Amino acid sequence: MSEKKQEVTACLIVIGNEILSGRTKDKNLPYLAERLNEWGVRLREARVIPDVEETIVATLNECRGKFDYVFTSGGIGPTHDDITSAAVAKAFGLKLIRHPEAVAILEARTRSMGVELNEARLKMAETPEGATLIENPVSGAPGFQVENVFVMAGVPSIMQGMVDGLRHRIAGGEPMLSRTVGAPLPEGELAPGLGALQDRFPDLDIGSYPSYRQGRFGVSIVMRGTEDGVLERAADELRALIRDLGATPVEEDAA
Amino acid sequence: MSEKKQEVTACLIVIGNEILSGRTKDKNLPYLAERLNEWGVRLREARVIPDVEETIVATLNECRGKFDYVFTSGGIGPTHDDITSAAVAKAFGLKLIRHPEAVAILEARTRSMGVELNEARLKMAETPEGATLIENPVSGAPGFQVENVFVMAGVPSIMQGMVDGLRHRIAGGEPMLSRTVGAPLPEGELAPGLGALQDRFPDLDIGSYPSYRQGRFGVSIVMRGTEDGVLERAADELRALIRDLGATPVEEDAA
Repeated sequence: MSEKKQEVTACLIVIGNEILSGRTKDKNLPYLAERLNEWGVRLREARVIPDVEETIVATLNECRGKFDYVFTSGGIGPTHDDITSAAVAKAFGLKLIRHPEAVAILEARTRSMGVELNEARLKMAETPEGATLIENPVSGAPGFQVENVFVMAGVPSIMQGMVDGLRHRIAGGEPMLSRTVGAPLPEGELAPGLGALQDRFPDLDIGSYPSYRQGRFGVSIVMRGTEDGVLERAADELRALIRDLGATPVEEDAA
Repeated sequence: MSEKKQEVTACLIVIGNEILSGRTKDKNLPYLAERLNEWGVRLREARVIPDVEETIVATLNECRGKFDYVFTSGGIGPTHDDITSAAVAKAFGLKLIRHPEAVAILEARTRSMGVELNEARLKMAETPEGATLIENPVSGAPGFQVENVFVMAGVPSIMQGMVDGLRHRIAGGEPMLSRTVGAPLPEGELAPGLGALQDRFPDLDIGSYPSYRQGRFGVSIVMRGTEDGVLERAADELRALIRDLGATPVEEDAA
């Protein structure tokens, strides 16, 4: 694992008791991770925390100083357990206000749906003072950005719509490229040659991911880096290593 | 969200670049969460961190002081990127040794498989000095425990086998029970009555989880607490609230 210089880094904070209770499986981490790869940003950490104000405040304040970008998902709906917006305001020492643009969006939305814009729904227009909205192309109620923190919904379809709209607000570095080659070998067979390969390609992150299905061992080797030519040379050496061990390399990159 | 007294708390640390790159979807958090619910332990936080020694050491040392139990998954295999065992030893200031029992397990295993116990495989017998092994009923190579930290494999089937064997080592509190009732309503309709319900049942954690599928809003209300009778009374009031709003409550608890 060589430390890359001038990496642009990010952290995801997943906020919600439902993830920690096991009831809901998080789908937002993998989605965000793949977008960030394309945008040249490295997701360096993720945290899953409960809907508890002091935990949200402390986690946000730690992470926004430590990473270039922080993304949150969850806790910006209309119910009593949606406390993310208030906690973000507190973390930044900003007033929680009813954002006029957000109110207008909710007014138009509820009018077109023929439902009442009640106090609970108006809670979804609350942001820290000075926040920039994040468009919600799915269900209207927006997310928001304060400095390097992007506050988004937890429902995956809504979160994904919000992330897709952030492309132009994120200044990334070089996109991360990868090659994945598999082998029907136990990891312990491949390990010595793989360690030597990592030593020969210090600029790549070479990861080894074993699987064990129906009593059979397999391994997927993922090589990540920013230069296509280097990745291809490393992949060639890996394929040769697998063949030397008497197995056939499997190309596992999506077409 | 009332703070429960005398809660037994836990944190999961998922270690692995493959999760942060989006390549692999974590399955260990929900599995552990459900076992801990049964054992009366509250999973209060989860972190996903890369295979970087200083990050593993810092995260472990923060979390093992903050929570009653810490579980880790990932990074205990035979390859160069498996650095968890060494990092745990460093975090505790303990020597990394070749654990004699673990060596014996690997010897028996490789002999029965007719493969060589090479240096890479022997790496899987390394633990901090004084660690207690965690049995791996799936593929042999054990995890280990040091004080309140349980170090397990990342491959889900192996991790699950390890977790299941830990029941007798964990001293939990009262098991967390739950009731889930759904409604085909937008969350904003239910929000006012739901907030009032939470106020009437301060000992329960009442969570509201909206869904948005094929253009239709729905919501699942999850009530969690340790007393069955209290949960049932709250669920009755919730069903009445949903009916008052002109909808039919949906029983969403698994049979």
